[in-house]
Amino acid sequence: MKIAVDCHGGDNSPQANVEGALIAMRRHDDLSVVFVGDKAQIDPLLADCGELKDRIEVIHAPEIITGEDRPTDAIRHKKDSSMIRAINLLREDPNVDALVSNGATGALVAASTLRIGRIRGIRRPAFCPLLPTMSGGIVGVCDSGANVDILPEQLVQFAIMGSRYLEAAFGIKDPKVAMLNIGTETEKGDNLRREAYPMLEKAPGINFVGNMESRDLLTGKYDLVVCDGFSGNVLIKTTEGTALEMLKKLKKEIRRKKRYLIGAGLMKKMFMDLKSFMNYQNYGGSVLLGCQKTVVKGHGSSDAHSFAVCMDQAYRMEKANMTEKIRESIAALPVEEETAE
Amino acid sequence: MKIAVDCHGGDNSPQANVEGALIAMRRHDDLSVVFVGDKAQIDPLLADCGELKDRIEVIHAPEIITGEDRPTDAIRHKKDSSMIRAINLLREDPNVDALVSNGATGALVAASTLRIGRIRGIRRPAFCPLLPTMSGGIVGVCDSGANVDILPEQLVQFAIMGSRYLEAAFGIKDPKVAMLNIGTETEKGDNLRREAYPMLEKAPGINFVGNMESRDLLTGKYDLVVCDGFSGNVLIKTTEGTALEMLKKLKKEIRRKKRYLIGAGLMKKMFMDLKSFMNYQNYGGSVLLGCQKTVVKGHGSSDAHSFAVCMDQAYRMEKANMTEKIRESIAALPVEEETAE
Repeated sequence: MKIAVDCHGGDNSPQANVEGALIAMRRHDDLSVVFVGDKAQIDPLLADCGELKDRIEVIHAPEIITGEDRPTDAIRHKKDSSMIRAINLLREDPNVDALVSNGATGALVAASTLRIGRIRGIRRPAFCPLLPTMSGGIVGVCDSGANVDILPEQLVQFAIMGSRYLEAAFGIKDPKVAMLNIGTETEKGDNLRREAYPMLEKAPGINFVGNMESRDLLTGKYDLVVCDGFSGNVLIKTTEGTALEMLKKLKKEIRRKKRYLIGAGLMKKMFMDLKSFMNYQNYGGSVLLGCQKTVVKGHGSSDAHSFAVCMDQAYRMEKANMTEKIRESIAALPVEEETAE
Repeated sequence: MKIAVDCHGGDNSPQANVEGALIAMRRHDDLSVVFVGDKAQIDPLLADCGELKDRIEVIHAPEIITGEDRPTDAIRHKKDSSMIRAINLLREDPNVDALVSNGATGALVAASTLRIGRIRGIRRPAFCPLLPTMSGGIVGVCDSGANVDILPEQLVQFAIMGSRYLEAAFGIKDPKVAMLNIGTETEKGDNLRREAYPMLEKAPGINFVGNMESRDLLTGKYDLVVCDGFSGNVLIKTTEGTALEMLKKLKKEIRRKKRYLIGAGLMKKMFMDLKSFMNYQNYGGSVLLGCQKTVVKGHGSSDAHSFAVCMDQAYRMEKANMTEKIRESIAALPVEEETAE
């Protein structure tokens, strides 16, 4: 198993990316890594990894794509960027199975779609980030922002890709799939949701349990939520934002009185655990589903630990042959006319 | 000033509705109320309000519309329901200025739109509920679910209606209006958002500050968020759901260790305040904006206190002549072809 690592792009890159990949290599004996990035910065970070040396390659690609670059311009003009070089490697080298990147989201989606290519039948790749549930599990949200204007059939594709992902990476059997809606009744929602509902009911290979309201996201009732990228983005960012603002508020209130400070002192560990529990970085990156090869997008603010979690995800997805399983599930769908894009 | 009260429909109706209205009457000397509902249930609740008697009327309407009734059926067949009778009163009696109802949302929107009628130029009425911000203020979200498939021009209408509402009911000057989007850059989002952005920039009578991400909803940076009813619904319910699940988690974790329990004992008042702070019912109902007369929708689970807050809202909106101000702002918009619906 060989994974390409895009060494640049995140806030703590290249250090977090390289160190994270090394952590993952120590966990998985059969894992080789190709580091793609500025050799002058990467080589010193590899000085102390003697025992891993023969599983490591470095490809020099000193340019960096930022959030300011337009995705199409980045693909065309930044050919020596770590991201584009890594994606080209994935496209060209049959021995490289997956890519982990913290880089600019728009460029990653565009370059992956264009260069690695979509699985046959998939209209567009989609992101599937994870959130922790209050019952101690996780819930996937697909799509969370790669596709903002979608067709009903795409919700079915998100359900299939997300289900195969949760099975492969987390061993969740028959993931319970719900469609994000403004009510739980069958006929609720906008035109998109009303058209998609019967399609989801009929689709083979998924365990569709109906509509869900966003207030139930964290309850643990569902394994996978399917939605358009716009409302999925709202769903994820509202959850993060509310949790963060509440923790801030708590911290501020505690400072108001001495007895609160004493109380909080006794509960310090609990608050730390709660903060860590709500820290989405601990649950891995946002997988881009639907390309011919596995692509994992880490958070821009990833540290080495969270980058290693992303590496683990990519490793497990490859071990479980996820891409092949998505291909089979999509092929099993009733044939629909595919529109050229 | 005369407000019609729909006495039935909420979980604690008619008691909470009647008692809440009486609380509001004691706060406002010039407020008269028409209670619409089952006289046999209402009269006993009015036994102890001698000093308010001459400002009270009761209209007998014993039927109740529930969430199970299809809105159109309810309007057609439940003519003796408290909601329909109250709405007809608003339509027919020029002395009745506003309606406060806890009743079924779908029926309330449909009946208000059809019977009370829209303000000229408004495509569809929209809800504008409020959430508390961490800076101690409030933020309005328009629309939160009345309109799921919308046109760009409707986002402009939501911005105007919401701005006039926040000015009238809360004295917020030049409310800062942001459009809910998946990023803050101008060109972000789906077709709807990209078309609406320049329209919002140009529209007179609003203080449009650009796109916002849902994670900033509670920060206090914005007074009003405009969005389609689908993502607005996701925004509101995710915020509520996350806050609720975090408080539940906190409660559960506290029970794990004695020292946590002792700490929590010292912080009891703080936790109670936090819970009350996050309780959206304390911030009033969801105003339905865009009808010829003021309609306030209280939460189905309202108690007397929160019903009284809804009454206050309706009172302030009427005092400030909000409907007239919306009418003027909409009339000042560049003329667009209105499509028949």
